[in-house]
Amino acid sequence: MKSIEVVYTPALLPLYDVKGKIVVVIDILRATSTMCVAFQTGVKRILPSGSPEECKIFKDFDFIISAERNAMKVEGFDMGNSPFEYQNPLLIGKSIAFTTTNGTKAIKLSQKMEAGEIVIGSFLNIEILCNWLLEQDKSIILLCSGWKDKYNIEDALFAGAVVSAIKQGFEIDCDAAISAENLYENNQNKLLEMVRKSSHARRFTLLNSQTDDVEFCLQKNICPVLPRMNGEYITL
Amino acid sequence: MKSIEVVYTPALLPLYDVKGKIVVVIDILRATSTMCVAFQTGVKRILPSGSPEECKIFKDFDFIISAERNAMKVEGFDMGNSPFEYQNPLLIGKSIAFTTTNGTKAIKLSQKMEAGEIVIGSFLNIEILCNWLLEQDKSIILLCSGWKDKYNIEDALFAGAVVSAIKQGFEIDCDAAISAENLYENNQNKLLEMVRKSSHARRFTLLNSQTDDVEFCLQKNICPVLPRMNGEYITL
Repeated sequence: MKSIEVVYTPALLPLYDVKGKIVVVIDILRATSTMCVAFQTGVKRILPSGSPEECKIFKDFDFIISAERNAMKVEGFDMGNSPFEYQNPLLIGKSIAFTTTNGTKAIKLSQKMEAGEIVIGSFLNIEILCNWLLEQDKSIILLCSGWKDKYNIEDALFAGAVVSAIKQGFEIDCDAAISAENLYENNQNKLLEMVRKSSHARRFTLLNSQTDDVEFCLQKNICPVLPRMNGEYITL
Repeated sequence: MKSIEVVYTPALLPLYDVKGKIVVVIDILRATSTMCVAFQTGVKRILPSGSPEECKIFKDFDFIISAERNAMKVEGFDMGNSPFEYQNPLLIGKSIAFTTTNGTKAIKLSQKMEAGEIVIGSFLNIEILCNWLLEQDKSIILLCSGWKDKYNIEDALFAGAVVSAIKQGFEIDCDAAISAENLYENNQNKLLEMVRKSSHARRFTLLNSQTDDVEFCLQKNICPVLPRMNGEYITL
């Protein structure tokens, strides 16, 4: 029987058998939300990159270069990691090289561990994602990007929302999946309040910016796209 | 200000600054519950041991030797890891060398990372533990032993119960603590049902044994003792 497992941080992924499974990479604040916005806008492809240094090289090859570290845009890059930046119609048809603190790292690790498919999940594309997951005949790992390998609440809430939506027909022998589902089901009517309490959202507030990003990233289905890894690129 | 952090598995402990903090080691099913029972019975001291091989040596020095791996007693040892075994009055005044799959490993790691104090937590001693924690002037890490470095639900529920009981006067800048508290508060009236759903409890059922252990380990305050590390031993 197909299984669903939830992995709360990339640091725990090596404990799991990833090979051939679908990995849904989750970084609600903000990388995977921002990627959904970019594809909804009409971006052609995104190259996830491990470091700002590596990312910068692609400027020479007609890429837009985007880098975020510690919730801030890195100096010298074209763009940061706020979803609002990626609504710009000038991005239509463009290629982006993208590096973030947590999300792109989770994608690279899933590749290295030989995931069968890597797809991008966020509240912004949850319905199209869940419908697609239900159609596949594969076991699923919901991989929370966390914050520097620590657990975070917004990724766990999203993982729980997915478990809650698709659990029929799957085997769930994973305490993290049971807990995430419980967390989501008990807090689904106060997601914003819950996430605002989180360390990550408070980190934004301390930086005096990006508080709107939190509210934006909790909207459901405003970007009905399904970005996924295709060789070295994320595409539709 | 004093902080409380929750660490869901020993695999994540290296991400935290442990030095000088109080670490509460949690292995509800069953090592830390069983240790509370042993001290309530009148055991003199417990030597946590990293492996069955190491543990066995102490048989020559008048220790009772106890070993559990994969939820089963290891062949050739005096005792396993069921709390019921440790209610035997013949244990009064005895020394026990003890190795388990998860709990003793979490204790050894906390020592290595230079915790200021290491104490043993379980529902069986939760009130005396919480009262003691409130009296200390130190930051606290609630360390879930998990299952082979993966998250488990019963340890998270207990961590949440402790956060819920003592959070006043502490800073909580830790999403795992916020989630654990939420999980506990939303499920405190159905702990047994919740834990029975867990992978660990189902592992017991598959082994055709120990289902009573689950119910036993969720009782509150039946062992009002506070075992803690004292050099190489756990004592009162």
